Amino acid sequence: MKIRVGIVGYGNLGRGVEAAIANSNDMELVGVFTRRDPASVHTATNLPVYKNEDALSMKDQIDVMILCGGSANDLPKQTVEFAQHFNVIDSFDTHANIPEHFACVDEISKKHQHISIISVGWDPGLFSLNRLYGQAILPQGADYTFWGKGVSQGHSDAIRRIDGVIDARQYTIPVEKALQQVRNGEHPVLSARQKHTRECYVVAEADADLAKIEETIKTMPNYFADYDTTVHFISEEELMAEHKGIPHGGIVLRSGTTGLHQEHKQLIEYKLTLDSNPGFTSSVLVAYARAAVRLYREGQYGCKTVFDIAPAYLHEASGEELRKNLL
Amino acid sequence: MKIRVGIVGYGNLGRGVEAAIANSNDMELVGVFTRRDPASVHTATNLPVYKNEDALSMKDQIDVMILCGGSANDLPKQTVEFAQHFNVIDSFDTHANIPEHFACVDEISKKHQHISIISVGWDPGLFSLNRLYGQAILPQGADYTFWGKGVSQGHSDAIRRIDGVIDARQYTIPVEKALQQVRNGEHPVLSARQKHTRECYVVAEADADLAKIEETIKTMPNYFADYDTTVHFISEEELMAEHKGIPHGGIVLRSGTTGLHQEHKQLIEYKLTLDSNPGFTSSVLVAYARAAVRLYREGQYGCKTVFDIAPAYLHEASGEELRKNLL
Repeated sequence: MKIRVGIVGYGNLGRGVEAAIANSNDMELVGVFTRRDPASVHTATNLPVYKNEDALSMKDQIDVMILCGGSANDLPKQTVEFAQHFNVIDSFDTHANIPEHFACVDEISKKHQHISIISVGWDPGLFSLNRLYGQAILPQGADYTFWGKGVSQGHSDAIRRIDGVIDARQYTIPVEKALQQVRNGEHPVLSARQKHTRECYVVAEADADLAKIEETIKTMPNYFADYDTTVHFISEEELMAEHKGIPHGGIVLRSGTTGLHQEHKQLIEYKLTLDSNPGFTSSVLVAYARAAVRLYREGQYGCKTVFDIAPAYLHEASGEELRKNLL
Repeated sequence: MKIRVGIVGYGNLGRGVEAAIANSNDMELVGVFTRRDPASVHTATNLPVYKNEDALSMKDQIDVMILCGGSANDLPKQTVEFAQHFNVIDSFDTHANIPEHFACVDEISKKHQHISIISVGWDPGLFSLNRLYGQAILPQGADYTFWGKGVSQGHSDAIRRIDGVIDARQYTIPVEKALQQVRNGEHPVLSARQKHTRECYVVAEADADLAKIEETIKTMPNYFADYDTTVHFISEEELMAEHKGIPHGGIVLRSGTTGLHQEHKQLIEYKLTLDSNPGFTSSVLVAYARAAVRLYREGQYGCKTVFDIAPAYLHEASGEELRKNLL
């Protein structure tokens, strides 16, 4: 029997999950759940759309709910609420609040004997996994994470909030020289400025003070002040033509040594080059949804992260097929 | 209490395990076990050396045995024999025979209620893991594995067996153009010749027929005939000065698409750049030895592979620390 999946929230991530499940053989979608008026939500594959509260009466029809809301406002409440009644997966990505979120979701999941997997995606997610594997295998060494080239939604939003700005797109770009130092095994200590540059494409109102906007961006604390930032003013047409996509990616490196005298340099490098950030994140969510249902069927429950999931649970094939074809 | 480890076999891999455990905080070595006369084996850290058969009387002092023999002749017998009495890890790397080896080790491990983890290293091992994660996350796509630049022991040995050859070192080198096609998302179909070249450094006897040696290498079936091969004749001094190390590495790529119409190209790339192949492989073995003992202490048994081990078992830190610091 196929794994039956519900999507909670229908933004970029929800649409990505819809496509990823259409690309899988062993999973099917039951519907989309939304806080909005269901009649106002039109899905790409004509899925039925329900109100969030209708989910309760559909418990027996859904093996796992994939929560596609935002980490700031939606997931801290939604994951806990849905974990009372369903196995759930979320992509909670506020790193500093993960321990608290884990504790809340774990308590409710254990009480109601469901499986939850939180903070699934690529960072947190696959990048976290590679930090773990890297440290476990090369305990003598240093971790490095570079992001980009890619669009940072948070930084783009920060620019959009400036007076006189109509729209904006911010790219985070790794500094090639820093990356090269790491690859050479130099174990550099790198400041924020040394690791990444920030490039901004801004559509301003006709009468806006461009110099002031540029100054506001470049001196914005936390977001831009600590980086070498470039600002380009462009037309709305150019923004839509050249900067419509949501590419992203990045690199996790573990630079370590082995040998009794640390005489061998060893480098592990994990790199993602993504045309679509939500398209990829949702594909990771779907693979972990498969794992969640398999764990649940084994009688396991509680909150998990990518660290707790044996890789074989993610792949449709049997253990025997995996050993034969992939090992 | 520290995890107590025994090493079976003291070649390059055994020496690597010795160093890796010296670099870890939570593991200690009990000794080396060998088929040779123990008095003839001198370990780098003055470990006690025993005969293989002495291991039986030391069952209570050893939590896990790391088998460091070869896949061709040692492991098919040794892993099964030691799995009767110990938790074991091996690096069995004859891909085609993995299912059979797994079945034998699984049967004996279940019977005697021990944990065994086979085929641990980087390929099979970490590369296999990345093939699995890549396929699970991007089911629409293609896998590519490139090896090198690195020393292939099997190919070096094949050259050494040629008449008139004193010593040799063979490097496998990925073809940059093929790699670039994969990174571009072109999904090329690549022949052996299109993926790798082979570069040979050969020390010949003074009166050897160099042209004949070169011809013998370049036309050798399976090993060289299907590749563009270059042969350099050098002196023994140059070989020892420039080609003494055992570097290796490689790249696993998953080139896939997401979106309802496969409209987004997504690329996952996992790359190893290793100064010492045995130094790295043994570090992977040691991390999985930690996992084996933890699984055993939970009451699990049977044969596992890297696919079956949740990543958290590999790392010394607790789940709470991992979530806080690495997720």
